[in-house]
Amino acid sequence: MKKKKINLAIIGFGNIGSYFYKTLNSQKRKIELKTNKNFVIKYVCAKNLKRKRKVKFPKKLWNNNPLSVCKMDDVDIIVELIGGAEGMAKKVVFSALKNKKHVITANKSLIAKYGDALSIIAEKNKVNLEYEASVAGGVPIIRSIKNGLVGNKMNKIYGILNGTTNYILSEMEKNDKDFFDVLNEAKKLGFAESNPTSDLNGNDAADKIRILSALAFNKTISKNKILTSGIQNINLNDIKHASGLGYKIKLLAISEIRNNKLIQRVHAALVPKKSYMANINGVLNAIIIDAKPVGRMVIQGEGAGPGPTTSSLISDLCSVLRGNIKYPFGISYKLRKKIDNFDIFKHISSSYIRIDVKDQSGVLSSITKSFAKNKISIKNLIQTPDKKSRKASIAIITHESFEKNFQNLIRNLYRNKYVINKPTFIRIEKV
Amino acid sequence: MKKKKINLAIIGFGNIGSYFYKTLNSQKRKIELKTNKNFVIKYVCAKNLKRKRKVKFPKKLWNNNPLSVCKMDDVDIIVELIGGAEGMAKKVVFSALKNKKHVITANKSLIAKYGDALSIIAEKNKVNLEYEASVAGGVPIIRSIKNGLVGNKMNKIYGILNGTTNYILSEMEKNDKDFFDVLNEAKKLGFAESNPTSDLNGNDAADKIRILSALAFNKTISKNKILTSGIQNINLNDIKHASGLGYKIKLLAISEIRNNKLIQRVHAALVPKKSYMANINGVLNAIIIDAKPVGRMVIQGEGAGPGPTTSSLISDLCSVLRGNIKYPFGISYKLRKKIDNFDIFKHISSSYIRIDVKDQSGVLSSITKSFAKNKISIKNLIQTPDKKSRKASIAIITHESFEKNFQNLIRNLYRNKYVINKPTFIRIEKV
Repeated sequence: MKKKKINLAIIGFGNIGSYFYKTLNSQKRKIELKTNKNFVIKYVCAKNLKRKRKVKFPKKLWNNNPLSVCKMDDVDIIVELIGGAEGMAKKVVFSALKNKKHVITANKSLIAKYGDALSIIAEKNKVNLEYEASVAGGVPIIRSIKNGLVGNKMNKIYGILNGTTNYILSEMEKNDKDFFDVLNEAKKLGFAESNPTSDLNGNDAADKIRILSALAFNKTISKNKILTSGIQNINLNDIKHASGLGYKIKLLAISEIRNNKLIQRVHAALVPKKSYMANINGVLNAIIIDAKPVGRMVIQGEGAGPGPTTSSLISDLCSVLRGNIKYPFGISYKLRKKIDNFDIFKHISSSYIRIDVKDQSGVLSSITKSFAKNKISIKNLIQTPDKKSRKASIAIITHESFEKNFQNLIRNLYRNKYVINKPTFIRIEKV
Repeated sequence: MKKKKINLAIIGFGNIGSYFYKTLNSQKRKIELKTNKNFVIKYVCAKNLKRKRKVKFPKKLWNNNPLSVCKMDDVDIIVELIGGAEGMAKKVVFSALKNKKHVITANKSLIAKYGDALSIIAEKNKVNLEYEASVAGGVPIIRSIKNGLVGNKMNKIYGILNGTTNYILSEMEKNDKDFFDVLNEAKKLGFAESNPTSDLNGNDAADKIRILSALAFNKTISKNKILTSGIQNINLNDIKHASGLGYKIKLLAISEIRNNKLIQRVHAALVPKKSYMANINGVLNAIIIDAKPVGRMVIQGEGAGPGPTTSSLISDLCSVLRGNIKYPFGISYKLRKKIDNFDIFKHISSSYIRIDVKDQSGVLSSITKSFAKNKISIKNLIQTPDKKSRKASIAIITHESFEKNFQNLIRNLYRNKYVINKPTFIRIEKV
């Protein structure tokens, strides 16, 4: 008996799209054997057929109207690889689900912003919405939460979710180079986009941790802005100071339940040199899950690039081909909780603060007064004068205090007449 | 509409069984919501109802005839938690599959020995055979290979798959203690069984790597004995020598495709101190997969114990409840390949060899002659005399050579009149 073929449309044919297309063709038979289903790539949507591409596809597959493809009767699965939370990507995914097509997407900003609305449509229309590639590239973290660890109650999920910033921080440390030098190298090597803003300011990692939170804690995706800061303020001296004190600096994304409330944050953190997270270097991603009864689970792999992304896209495809409609977030939308946010001001940490000051008498007393006023006590202080420019840099490790106090302190310091620019504030994280 | 309930029988009610039972009851509603199916625990088979247990179950569930439970019409899923490749466990699993019941098992020796035969029956009878808990405890490695990484061509899979031996090696190093002292502690702490032979001699890890090989390379389970050695010969001096040279000693299980042939082995290995594997301590398990297009994936977690095992058992249960019959090894038995074995004698490595000798003149020349005769050149040599007992210990790091040469060398050395006992031979592994 001939099996019904399942028809696929790939929408978006850049680096990822073309690598996915190529791999799908070479792995076709294997995928069909493993899923016991046959499929064909029916359409490829790309803006411009004539653009030079490493991978060629038969002209007859080409369609330049993605929205019409989403409505076609002979399409079962839409693979959206355009990217971005708005514009065509959004239209395509909403339209596909409304027209009862399964959707596979690598689009983290779309899922982080519209994942709940999309899951409602997918559930109503009994189609799958799969997005393994949207978080941590090839690392099958979403599938692991939904399937492999399904019997667990999660307490905390955190990790390194942005390869670009991790590459920059690792290279700065390894090669004694400054932020902008490494950033430029990263761009040349393809590890940073030409406009890397959302990587550098933490927004990319924030999208990802919001998706993981929703999955791990069976909750809706939080709409509120979460504490997000990036790595643009970090310079080589910070890395050296941290190193001298036994720490490395990493951009962490952290989500946890504390007193039945949710606390999500993305920020650079000092982590002990010997810790697992400190040793995740380059473009790698790594995630730690604390859960019961499994204990602590760690998973790491390549966080971006056509290969890892394609690995995840194919796992999504197999999930659709194998059948059985799955809840996009592991549990029906109706049953997903809304968890109150933990008051971030009540978060306690110790921290590293670097303050660039004019090298004048009275500076130190003025600075330390601010600390005392904000009830933050100092554990270590290193002052490095730069005689030539008549500036100095004061690096301080504090004892534990409330986030609120730190934020007030930074504001006070920034207003201090001796202080040259906004102090760099990096929380110390026990990981 | 009331959903049909799916009936479960738990066979074997020791530590694992009772923890699983307890968790299943507390997580029942969550599992049902996530799978959209209802289930009941219909039977619990335990040898002795009166045995003192931490967890109580209603007497009406008790049945002391597992084989009759396997045939009952009101049983859909059999969870086998007896253990062992033969005896009742084997009878139960074969009988359950023959009677068209889904099977969930944590039994690595059974799967390693009879997995192929069992998968044939499961496929024929269209029921699932799930065994996530059989390898690496709570680490969802089997599901990751079958689903999350399904689109990859694997080249190598290796790691630390035995928590007992890893605990012993880590503790010896950390606390400067000898093998038997740590082993006794491990027994007291529940990290080693009262009869730990199959852990210590590598057989447990060998079972697990044979299962992972079959999954990773879409092949049948190899029947031949694979190169297996344990850690019983390793003493504190070996660990100290290794440390001085920048290495740690770990029991690794390694499977890879080399020149289209399969090479599987379990043995202690010197791994660079800075490597990922060197930093997996205590009872943790860790697995590295090299695959295309995903690159290198790492996954680690607790390798044993009731909690982690239960986490995997529940993921198996959810897989069954969600429906769709899955191939036990990811692909139909008929399509699984038989891969020839790589000639292990042609494997090349450098190695660490410790030779305990009588402290007499002429020893060193006699020993080094053996090395030369077997074409193994020496890179480092440390001789530690023990004047009191008139013995000495010679620790040698070699350059690369063939496995065949090493095995001949060890045989020659063992026959050497100066040599007191079988030399300890530990391969150096580039991980």
